[in-house]
This record gives sequence, C-alpha cells and structure tokens, in this order.
Amino acid sequence: MKVKLLTAALCCAFLHTQAQSDSVMFKRIADEIMLNGTCYENLRVLCKTIGHRLSGTPQAAEAVKWGQKALEQAGADKVWLQPVDVPHWVRGQEKLSLRFKGDKDFKEVPMLSIGNTVGTEGKPMQAAVVMVNDIAEFNKLDIADIKGNIIFFNYRFRQDIINTFEGYGDAGKYRWLAPNVAAAKGAAGVIIRSVSTGEDDHPHTGSMRYADTVKPIPAVAVGNMTANLLEKECRKGGVTAEINSTCKMLGMVRSYNVIGEITGTEHPEKIVVVSGHLDSWDVGEGAHDDGAGCVQSIEVVRTLKALGIRPKYTIRTVLFMNEENGVKGGHAYADSAKARKENHILAIESDAGGFSPRGIGLDMKPEKKEKILAYRKLFYPYGVYDFDHEEGGVDISLLQRQGVPVAGLLPDPQRYFDLHHTRNDVFEQVNHRELKLGAVTLAGLVYLVSTHGL
Amino acid sequence: MKVKLLTAALCCAFLHTQAQSDSVMFKRIADEIMLNGTCYENLRVLCKTIGHRLSGTPQAAEAVKWGQKALEQAGADKVWLQPVDVPHWVRGQEKLSLRFKGDKDFKEVPMLSIGNTVGTEGKPMQAAVVMVNDIAEFNKLDIADIKGNIIFFNYRFRQDIINTFEGYGDAGKYRWLAPNVAAAKGAAGVIIRSVSTGEDDHPHTGSMRYADTVKPIPAVAVGNMTANLLEKECRKGGVTAEINSTCKMLGMVRSYNVIGEITGTEHPEKIVVVSGHLDSWDVGEGAHDDGAGCVQSIEVVRTLKALGIRPKYTIRTVLFMNEENGVKGGHAYADSAKARKENHILAIESDAGGFSPRGIGLDMKPEKKEKILAYRKLFYPYGVYDFDHEEGGVDISLLQRQGVPVAGLLPDPQRYFDLHHTRNDVFEQVNHRELKLGAVTLAGLVYLVSTHGL
Repeated sequence: MKVKLLTAALCCAFLHTQAQSDSVMFKRIADEIMLNGTCYENLRVLCKTIGHRLSGTPQAAEAVKWGQKALEQAGADKVWLQPVDVPHWVRGQEKLSLRFKGDKDFKEVPMLSIGNTVGTEGKPMQAAVVMVNDIAEFNKLDIADIKGNIIFFNYRFRQDIINTFEGYGDAGKYRWLAPNVAAAKGAAGVIIRSVSTGEDDHPHTGSMRYADTVKPIPAVAVGNMTANLLEKECRKGGVTAEINSTCKMLGMVRSYNVIGEITGTEHPEKIVVVSGHLDSWDVGEGAHDDGAGCVQSIEVVRTLKALGIRPKYTIRTVLFMNEENGVKGGHAYADSAKARKENHILAIESDAGGFSPRGIGLDMKPEKKEKILAYRKLFYPYGVYDFDHEEGGVDISLLQRQGVPVAGLLPDPQRYFDLHHTRNDVFEQVNHRELKLGAVTLAGLVYLVSTHGL
Repeated sequence: MKVKLLTAALCCAFLHTQAQSDSVMFKRIADEIMLNGTCYENLRVLCKTIGHRLSGTPQAAEAVKWGQKALEQAGADKVWLQPVDVPHWVRGQEKLSLRFKGDKDFKEVPMLSIGNTVGTEGKPMQAAVVMVNDIAEFNKLDIADIKGNIIFFNYRFRQDIINTFEGYGDAGKYRWLAPNVAAAKGAAGVIIRSVSTGEDDHPHTGSMRYADTVKPIPAVAVGNMTANLLEKECRKGGVTAEINSTCKMLGMVRSYNVIGEITGTEHPEKIVVVSGHLDSWDVGEGAHDDGAGCVQSIEVVRTLKALGIRPKYTIRTVLFMNEENGVKGGHAYADSAKARKENHILAIESDAGGFSPRGIGLDMKPEKKEKILAYRKLFYPYGVYDFDHEEGGVDISLLQRQGVPVAGLLPDPQRYFDLHHTRNDVFEQVNHRELKLGAVTLAGLVYLVSTHGL
C-alpha cells in the first residue's frame, strides 16, 4: 500500500513537474516567435515578390522554390520536393455586362469567373437573366424559364451565423451546385452572388467541378453590391447579361509539395505533420489563404531549431500544392505515406487565415483527443480556448481517411470571408502579431506531441 | 419538507426556464444586430463626415450634434446634453529634423507631438540627442548629459506580452514620465519611441501632463522605424535634433456629454450605463478609439427598441467627452450622478477597439461578479469567454470611485496598439462583423442586467 502511495505521489510530482516544464517551454517558444519570428517577413516576400500562385502557373513554380529555400533557412534537417501533377486552369480575359429594363446599353460590372469553369471562347454570349434566391426556387422554375437563359443564384451568406465557416458551409455549396443544376436543365450560363460576408463589391472566385453528366456552361460571381443591384433590377424584370470570357482548363502540369523535416531523436519513424498550402487563387496575393499557413508551418521548424529543441518524434512541415482546385497535393502526400507505410501520429493544418488564434479543431479518437485536451490550459495564455470543433483541413483529410488523427488551427473567423478568394487577400490584411500568435499555437502543439507522443 | 422540495423544484424549473428565455432573447438580439445593425454605417458617417474630433475643436462640437441625432434615431426615450468644460489643445505646425554624425543637413522625419505638450513657439530649437533605453538609464545620467539636451527615450513596447493592454501599461508610462523627469533635470526637449506595437513608422500621440513643479519642455513621438534609425545613429554619437512646433494649450471650452435613455418600466431610478467616448485624438478618424464604442453603445438602444424590449431598469447610453486629454466628461457625469443621488447599478464602457469581442472585464464586489458570471455561458456562442480581468474604462472609473460596479468590453487586443492614436486609426481598419459582435456583447449584458437587476 505504501509503495502504491509512494508511486502515486511520485507520479503526481512527475506530472506536475512535466506540466511546469511544458509551460516554461511554451513561454520560450512564444517569446522566440513574438520577438524573433520571421513568418511575417517571409509572408511579405511570398506575397510581394511572387504574389498569387494558382496551380500550374509560373508563380506556383516560383513558390515551390521559395518554400524550399525558406525551409532550408529555417534549419530543417532535410528538405525535399514531392512530385504532384496538377490541373492548370487559366482565367484569361473575362467580362460581365448587364443591361437593365429601359436601358439601351450594357454596363460592365466587377466579376470573377468561378475557378475551373469554361468561358465563352472569347465570344459575347447574351441572354435574359432569371433570378432565384435559392435552390428551392430554382427547382420550381419551368424549364422554359431556364433554357437558354442566364440564371442568377442570389443566395446570401448568412450574416446571422456567428462562425463564418458554418456560414461558408451553407452558402459555399452554391458555387458547385448552381452551374451543375442550371447546366443540367439547359441554362446558357450562371451568375452567383459571391460567397462573401463583405459589405463591398469584391467578387469571390473559388472552386467548382462539372458533373460528368452535364455540358459545361460559364459561371461567374459578382460582389455583394452588384448582386444587390442585380436583385433590384431582376425584380423589375427585363435584365439581359452578356458574358465574354476566355477561361479554360489546360492540361496537367508537374508541380510539387514542399516538405521539410526535423528528424526525431527517439522515434524518427513516427511523424507529426504541420502544414499549409502553397497554391492560391489567381487574384490577390493569397496572403490569408494560405500564405499564412505556409509561413506559420515554416516558423515551427525555425523556432524549435533556434531554441535547440530536439524532438523525440519526427516533425514535418508540408507545404501542399493544389488545395484550391484539385487537392492533388493532399492526395499525393497521403498516397506516398500509405505506399511507404509511414506512421503519422498527428497531422495539423493551418488554412483558415492568419488572424488571432482562438482554438484548435480536433478530429480523432476520444482517447487521443483527451490526451490533447489535457494540455488545453497551456494554450489559454495565448487566447486559444476553443477545442470543441472537429476540424482538420482539406489537404490532411486524405491522411485522416487513413486513420491519422488531425487538427486544424482555428483563428478568429470574422474577417476571413470578406477577403477569401478576392483581389483583397493581400499582405496588408495580415497583422504581424496575429500571424505570429497562430505560429505560437502551432509550435506549442507540435512541441507537445513531438515530445510526449500521442 | 415536501413543500420545501416542491419550492426547490419550482425554483429550479423557473431558473431553467429563465436561462432558456435569456438564451432566446440573446439570439434575437444577435440576429437583429448582425442582420439589421446600423453601428457600422453610423461609424462610417462619424469617421468620414466629421473625422477626428479632439476636445474643444469644431469637429468635437459637430460630433456632439451627430451623437444626439443618432441616439434620437435609435429611438431613445430621452436624449440630452450634459455640459462639460474641456481643455482645448492645438497641435498647430510641427516638425522634427535629425542630423546624424558626419551629415551636413538635417532630415525631417515623421513625428507627432505628445498631446497637451508645449511647442517651441514656432522657433527652431536645436540640441544634441542623448539616448536612454529606459528610466533606469536616465537616472544614471550625469546632469551635464541632460541639461540643454534632447533626451531620446528608446523604450520598446514589449511584443512578448500577449495581452497588448498589459504591454501598454508597461510602455505607456513613458509618455507621461519622460517629459516630466527630463524637464525636472533641465533637458531642452524629449523624443520618445512611440507607444506602439506597429512594425511601421506611424508616430503615436496620446496624453501627458506636466507636474506643477517642472518647466514644460516640448515632447514628441517618432514611429518605430524612425526610432530604430535614431537608436542606430545614437550609438555612433553626434546626433542633433531640431524641434519646431506651435502646439499649445488654449483655454477651456464648453462641450457636452451626450446621453440617451430608455426609461425602466419597474425601476426607473436604477440605471445601467453603456458608454464610449466621443472625442478622439486630432489625427486619423478615431475609428477604433473610440468611434467604435460610441456606435456600439447607440446600437444597444436601437436594438432593444427595434425588438420592442421594455427594460425593467433604466438604460443610459453615454457618449463621454474628453476621455483623451482630461477626462472632464467622466468627472462631469459622476459629479452629476452624485449630486442627484442617482443609483447606478452597473456602468459599462467599450473603449478598447472595435475588434472581435473576447471577454468582459468585471470590477465589482464578488457577489455582484458571481451574478454576472452565472450568465457567462450565454456569451460563449459569440466568442466571448474571458471574464477573468478586472477592467472597466477610464470614463466610468469616476463612477467606480463612488462604488458603482463597472464592466469593460474586451475585444481581441492584437491590432489595437498598431493603430491607437495614429493617422491610421480610420474607418477602413474596422470590420463590420467584429464591430457588430461587440455590440451584441454589450447589448446582451445590458439586456440581462436591465431585466434581472444586479
């Protein structure tokens, strides 16, 4: 009995000491990033010297080189490129013009073609505009109201949903759904109200895919102000739109995931991934989406190296290619992991913006989650308190399918969908302290799991 | 015993029902603000048609009219102006030029005089620059190193402190301290490194006051980049500065606090205050500091009126005048409350920026605090989880001295001290959803206390 009590007491003392030492290390990590962090400067370089970098473009190729160099400079033990074949979609020239009832002339409005869509091959395509507020209204239309017309899907991003990622889940489906259902019933084209919380006129692009069963039609997005105008005019009737665009899908292009590793001292075969995606849409600078996640994941390596921390488990920073319009990088990484029988104990992604961190999404078996939740108080001093969401990330979802526990950084979500996939997602929208605090959160989690396992 | 059990059960059921009904009302309030809120548009008008509005200026007088009208439009039962005599400081012309070792010419650098300081009466004042990193270094200087020289206080805002308001408490004292200690030992002037987290060159102004015992000397602030340059050059020695400014304190000017009230149905004599301050510094647009707090406090009234909520306790929105350089409005309100023997059950201030709310500071007796903490879960869906800080606000600190419980909105603090008291504190820096969520938090708290008392 005495021995048991002594063991229990020693065990308690050990855990207490471990928690104290974790807390001290967490503070050292935070100080290193807040005082000497390079992620903000790295982001400036990525955004301002390369800019946007859609898969298959020369800028994406430059971004691969940048990522490789940045990981080497961060001090990774090994850096390598993992080949990925990616689609190459080009926006080309694009124009949307509207003519309202009683007007003689068309007026051009700000727009962006939805990513992966077809264009009009550079010929003007005119048609009457028919507005529906949602899919239910569309389903009630007579076929004659659809055939040969341009359907305006006027679905609004729900501002009453406090977590904008839930709002995105709700409204975002129209980007995929609208062109497909309209094409299936013979529409000539589609205009959607952008998937946007913005009180502005920035159009938001983003991904879609045509079903094999439909003949592709052009699909474009307009900003909220243009959508408001179009809504008003459609109520009066007699609106005609003209789409003229050259966007099209080219063939596949060889590209790469960029991977940097710190090899574990005791369990080199067990791997913790921390990641973002290197590609972006072809407007703006992909600063929040997802330059932020890339530079934060690189910062994790730099920080542990700068502090001389030698992790027991292997840490890999992965900069995935092609999250935006194909997820080919996520597939390539997961396929390779499976083929090589790699043992991933945790995969983390930061792909929700470079804003102040507020939580960490955890999607894993309850016993693993409990182990991470036991650390939660270590995160509180950094404003990270929300561990209730089951979220990882798009790129790591392929590892998740193989049973790998996943986690996702959850930054404050209020501004993200004002900027997401727009010309306004630029470096100036990222705050240096917010970005660094996200890196602190990632580095803290990676430190804990690469020290104590999971 | 049975009666007791029954009473307990009924009481439990009642509390459960009350919590449900509070939660439903909270959601109605949030929906009303997120979907129909006018605070963002109100802020646009305040910032873009009036702009900055230092106490005593014509713009401050315009802001009083704007506030009165906005409260009337929000539907307040009564709106009135409370006279306040405020200081009128004018910046005038100002210029700081530096000449480094080996240079022939002076070079002008971005600067702002610290508020309330004297100028050089429009005459150039040249002196050698002596740098100290903190007050301890200053105290070690020989009097000969100080006398007739310009002392550069190079104290840095500590980026390693996660809560920037704590960092502000640490670095902000230099704005007051530096001119006073330097003047007391015969310095000709003072330059401080701005009280700024910004990785930029925006100088930050802000308040100071000369001790009665010192002869006022000019004191100016430079942005972090200029401070870095000056630090580098001071290490080499031989730096001369020239200050030329016309800033000065004029006499007192009649101004007003703006007050709007919804009179309580059951306890009209018991008052809940929700507030911000109407004045700002004389650069930028005072968007976060504190246009945000004003429009949020007005939104509380508008929302309760729009929803037909008739509070049992009286609610007052107070837009205080002169928080920035005298707190005369806070004093006037508290003096009047005392003279009229008004009974304030809670005073709330929003004066920490229009960013995503993260918590509510509570400074009051433990039994009152417990009562508010019992509601904390109602705030969680809106991202508000931190109730651990004892903070109210500067304007309501005078009520607090009379024993009134106080609360302060705590938004995300990471960006605030990049913008605070700079030309960059403009409307564009405020996000509509973040601003509105702050209003939701205030309106929720006001609803609870004006319904259930405190």
